[in-house]
Amino acid sequence: MSTIHGIIGYTITPFGANGEGLDLPALGQSIDRLIDSGVHAIAPLGSTGEGAYLSDAEWDQVAEFSIKHVAKRVPTIVSVSDLTTAKAVRRARFAEAHGADVVMVLPASYWKLTEAEILAHYRAIGESIGVPIMLYNNPATSGTDMSVDLILRIVNAVENVTMVKESTGDIQRMHKLQLLGEGQVPFYNGCNPLALEAFAAGAKGWCTAAPNLIPQLNLDLYDAAMAGDLDRARDLFYRQLPLLDFILKGGLPATIKAGLRQTGLEVGDPRLPVFPLSEAGQTQLQTILKTLR
Amino acid sequence: MSTIHGIIGYTITPFGANGEGLDLPALGQSIDRLIDSGVHAIAPLGSTGEGAYLSDAEWDQVAEFSIKHVAKRVPTIVSVSDLTTAKAVRRARFAEAHGADVVMVLPASYWKLTEAEILAHYRAIGESIGVPIMLYNNPATSGTDMSVDLILRIVNAVENVTMVKESTGDIQRMHKLQLLGEGQVPFYNGCNPLALEAFAAGAKGWCTAAPNLIPQLNLDLYDAAMAGDLDRARDLFYRQLPLLDFILKGGLPATIKAGLRQTGLEVGDPRLPVFPLSEAGQTQLQTILKTLR
Amino acid sequence: MSTIHGIIGYTITPFGANGEGLDLPALGQSIDRLIDSGVHAIAPLGSTGEGAYLSDAEWDQVAEFSIKHVAKRVPTIVSVSDLTTAKAVRRARFAEAHGADVVMVLPASYWKLTEAEILAHYRAIGESIGVPIMLYNNPATSGTDMSVDLILRIVNAVENVTMVKESTGDIQRMHKLQLLGEGQVPFYNGCNPLALEAFAAGAKGWCTAAPNLIPQLNLDLYDAAMAGDLDRARDLFYRQLPLLDFILKGGLPATIKAGLRQTGLEVGDPRLPVFPLSEAGQTQLQTILKTLR
Amino acid sequence: MSTIHGIIGYTITPFGANGEGLDLPALGQSIDRLIDSGVHAIAPLGSTGEGAYLSDAEWDQVAEFSIKHVAKRVPTIVSVSDLTTAKAVRRARFAEAHGADVVMVLPASYWKLTEAEILAHYRAIGESIGVPIMLYNNPATSGTDMSVDLILRIVNAVENVTMVKESTGDIQRMHKLQLLGEGQVPFYNGCNPLALEAFAAGAKGWCTAAPNLIPQLNLDLYDAAMAGDLDRARDLFYRQLPLLDFILKGGLPATIKAGLRQTGLEVGDPRLPVFPLSEAGQTQLQTILKTLR
Repeated sequence: MSTIHGIIGYTITPFGANGEGLDLPALGQSIDRLIDSGVHAIAPLGSTGEGAYLSDAEWDQVAEFSIKHVAKRVPTIVSVSDLTTAKAVRRARFAEAHGADVVMVLPASYWKLTEAEILAHYRAIGESIGVPIMLYNNPATSGTDMSVDLILRIVNAVENVTMVKESTGDIQRMHKLQLLGEGQVPFYNGCNPLALEAFAAGAKGWCTAAPNLIPQLNLDLYDAAMAGDLDRARDLFYRQLPLLDFILKGGLPATIKAGLRQTGLEVGDPRLPVFPLSEAGQTQLQTILKTLR
Repeated sequence: MSTIHGIIGYTITPFGANGEGLDLPALGQSIDRLIDSGVHAIAPLGSTGEGAYLSDAEWDQVAEFSIKHVAKRVPTIVSVSDLTTAKAVRRARFAEAHGADVVMVLPASYWKLTEAEILAHYRAIGESIGVPIMLYNNPATSGTDMSVDLILRIVNAVENVTMVKESTGDIQRMHKLQLLGEGQVPFYNGCNPLALEAFAAGAKGWCTAAPNLIPQLNLDLYDAAMAGDLDRARDLFYRQLPLLDFILKGGLPATIKAGLRQTGLEVGDPRLPVFPLSEAGQTQLQTILKTLR
Repeated sequence: MSTIHGIIGYTITPFGANGEGLDLPALGQSIDRLIDSGVHAIAPLGSTGEGAYLSDAEWDQVAEFSIKHVAKRVPTIVSVSDLTTAKAVRRARFAEAHGADVVMVLPASYWKLTEAEILAHYRAIGESIGVPIMLYNNPATSGTDMSVDLILRIVNAVENVTMVKESTGDIQRMHKLQLLGEGQVPFYNGCNPLALEAFAAGAKGWCTAAPNLIPQLNLDLYDAAMAGDLDRARDLFYRQLPLLDFILKGGLPATIKAGLRQTGLEVGDPRLPVFPLSEAGQTQLQTILKTLR
Repeated sequence: MSTIHGIIGYTITPFGANGEGLDLPALGQSIDRLIDSGVHAIAPLGSTGEGAYLSDAEWDQVAEFSIKHVAKRVPTIVSVSDLTTAKAVRRARFAEAHGADVVMVLPASYWKLTEAEILAHYRAIGESIGVPIMLYNNPATSGTDMSVDLILRIVNAVENVTMVKESTGDIQRMHKLQLLGEGQVPFYNGCNPLALEAFAAGAKGWCTAAPNLIPQLNLDLYDAAMAGDLDRARDLFYRQLPLLDFILKGGLPATIKAGLRQTGLEVGDPRLPVFPLSEAGQTQLQTILKTLR
């Protein structure tokens, strides 16, 4: 069904001074870094990519550029979430038309949605495109928590919803997906500090911005888990956990952008109201990164 | 300081078929109905107005039209929240330029904001306009909960943040605003089923979409509370509570739009993914409204 | 049906040095103070009375002494909650046999109870006694939250469950009790900082330890609410709110015992692990009390 | 420091008809079954053992009998939690005097405790005995949630608090214990459906009532985890997960007692208000157990 697996690297969106304008050459460099380091897929315009803070025109530019720049070296998974069904459908079609391999959909909404509304939202997007959809559950950012039962109902009802990204951080959701989905619904972990346990529970991949900074540790953890080597996986996990905790608490755009700058790639700051990483945070990040190299 | 008080009526945003296009004449009629019924202020583009589901061009049209149509018969309070500080500043300036008396700001965000980020957001908007700002706390829709301490810090730091709309439904927040603000920070209730207790606690007004359907009951409750007549206020409150509960649970755009249709004003349906009110819901609404007339 | 109303004063349980032994004479004095000040009922062995920290023999002594000492000057409402149904039944029978007018029952449990288990618990107690039962909902201490629907089911199923004490602090529960109970189920407020709004919503009484320290303010608030005088009720409420907040946050046994000591009645300290009020807390309490006299 | 490890089997407490009286011979049989099946330690009087529902005399009998009956074949870990510090100290001393190897302490309380109160509670117990203490965090039953920071402060402050049982089900707590405790604070998992991930994260043992019913599967999972064989551990975990979920949802005393009856050991029912397992539940349990043998 799906061949998406492994380390799925999220890209940031580089801005110019004062958060204005896009810096596409820097985006290209960051994509190349990720692919050269060995990630198994590229995911633009997610939370890390500040997709929610772009104008529609900017969103289109980043989507088109990212897909072209990846150029099928690895699969591209484009987050197409938007506040209305019509806008999400437009983005999904745009991504497919420009060559996206998969689109990711979070049921973003201002008003709390009923289960019927969520299902209809996925159905409308599914029917408008031909590529697979990765359903994305992340109540912390979307405000909408989809139960495992609802997720499986959507997977059964909408043919091209074939993958599930779970970001609640609740490992029991993955257990339930595995048991109720009878091992047939591939799930992916979107909560960085759950990386070890998600692989233990059978996750097919890890959606993460961390490979912008520590790709080898992320890849080694995946390899150890796939090899069934629990002791090595545990060691690798605890080594990288301080960084995973740091980027989660500090916010992905602020910490990843600061980290890229520290490693020589200038990608600007996040857009306000999100602050760039404080000086104290930058020092802490530098210290953590130093111990990991 | 502020003269905003009483029943602050929220407007819906009428759409054409399939949620496409704006129906400004219908918007004008709904505004006239509210003003003719006696509400003390008009608030376009709030949650009820599906502000989050409009394109930027549509938002501008609705803001401009609403302010012009109200034409200073009562104050207009325009919700200018947006996901980036730059966009919220743009909307605030637009609203002021077109004659808004007050702008309302919810710290909408995709990423959880720190207190410093929220304060900077309000400061940036405050410094860009001259009209007063009503700070709006509603974690259920914004994902960000501002403590009373933070709210008062913002009120003290940003000169034109002079009013607070509290929608958590937690009456203790209002107590704390009253005690810590030493009675000098006017607060407004944004949680319909808390109307009675908010007035008991000293709220200056009630921000509500209910006067689209039952303006006289809303106004009478306000009058009874201002007259200090607790028994009459309690009776009036319990009479209208079933409707207040119904519109809260059913979602404001869906229930208010259905109710307007039932009273002869066609304003279309909410935009997907939000469903229009189900047939069962319409029947229930009709029954409730019948008992209230 | 029930004539219980007004200010229902909770008694502390005075201990000797190191929390050992009971000081019944001091208990008698504290009861006399409450009755002399005008409270409408006395409630021993509640949360304030550290009922959960007494041995069975001590519990029996306090129950018997309290009922005798009140001597029908006002009704006595004895909390008979215990961890097993058999033990709660024993306490209920004991209280009735010694003259309690009402028994109060919290579904205390170690294991989370199902609704059927809670109903059976109330039924077993109800069938074993003849006096009325005040059902008590307080998830913060019992770990079990009873929905309004469940509460009304119990009221309908168990003849002598005729009153409801609600301590969640959620005013919407009282609204629902009023609406679904069609005004026929008397409810009492057990959340001190909700006193004003509970009376606004129609509560018949206020279960509180505050009259150990500020009986007149509590009684005046009740009188103003009964007279329908909202402005006076609001003023009285905000005057006493700092004390109500203080005793809630500091813990009732620690703060009330410290306050009684400050007013000349030595009742010992709470039993460990609960600490007596810190020195800083004692100073703060003294300051608050001074402004209220 | 501590040699406690592996599968720590919790015992039920068998009652006579109507929950009256203790059936010590049946308790002896259930202990023998556990030890014969290979568990690494026995833990009487925990949640499963309905310790909270026993009289003091019964508690003493069960503690004394259990320790004697285990007779050092494996270590005995006695839960000595009680609502006052004085009572918990008494139980701890009693357990030590009768030969307990370890005592387990949950900060059970009626009133929410401050961190200082919790620390003083552990200190008082620690100073009164010589055997090691396993600190037990389970907010679902105790109402008190101890942060990892507080737990480590207690471990550092009280010499004989040397082990931590974590039952929140939040794997991040174990990560933090491992990182902040620098691998020197042995932790044990008390949340059945977290068994796989807790071992992945480095837990030294699993405190569970499941070996009353499926000891070999529990032991095999532990062995696979210790051998670092992730694939085998995952397979074993998912095989037993339906049972682990079932006993968690159904309540340990009700489900384990029903399961023991199904396997030929009559141990009576739980004490009311806790219901015995329903007939539908018994059928479901039988079906699950059949697939596991």
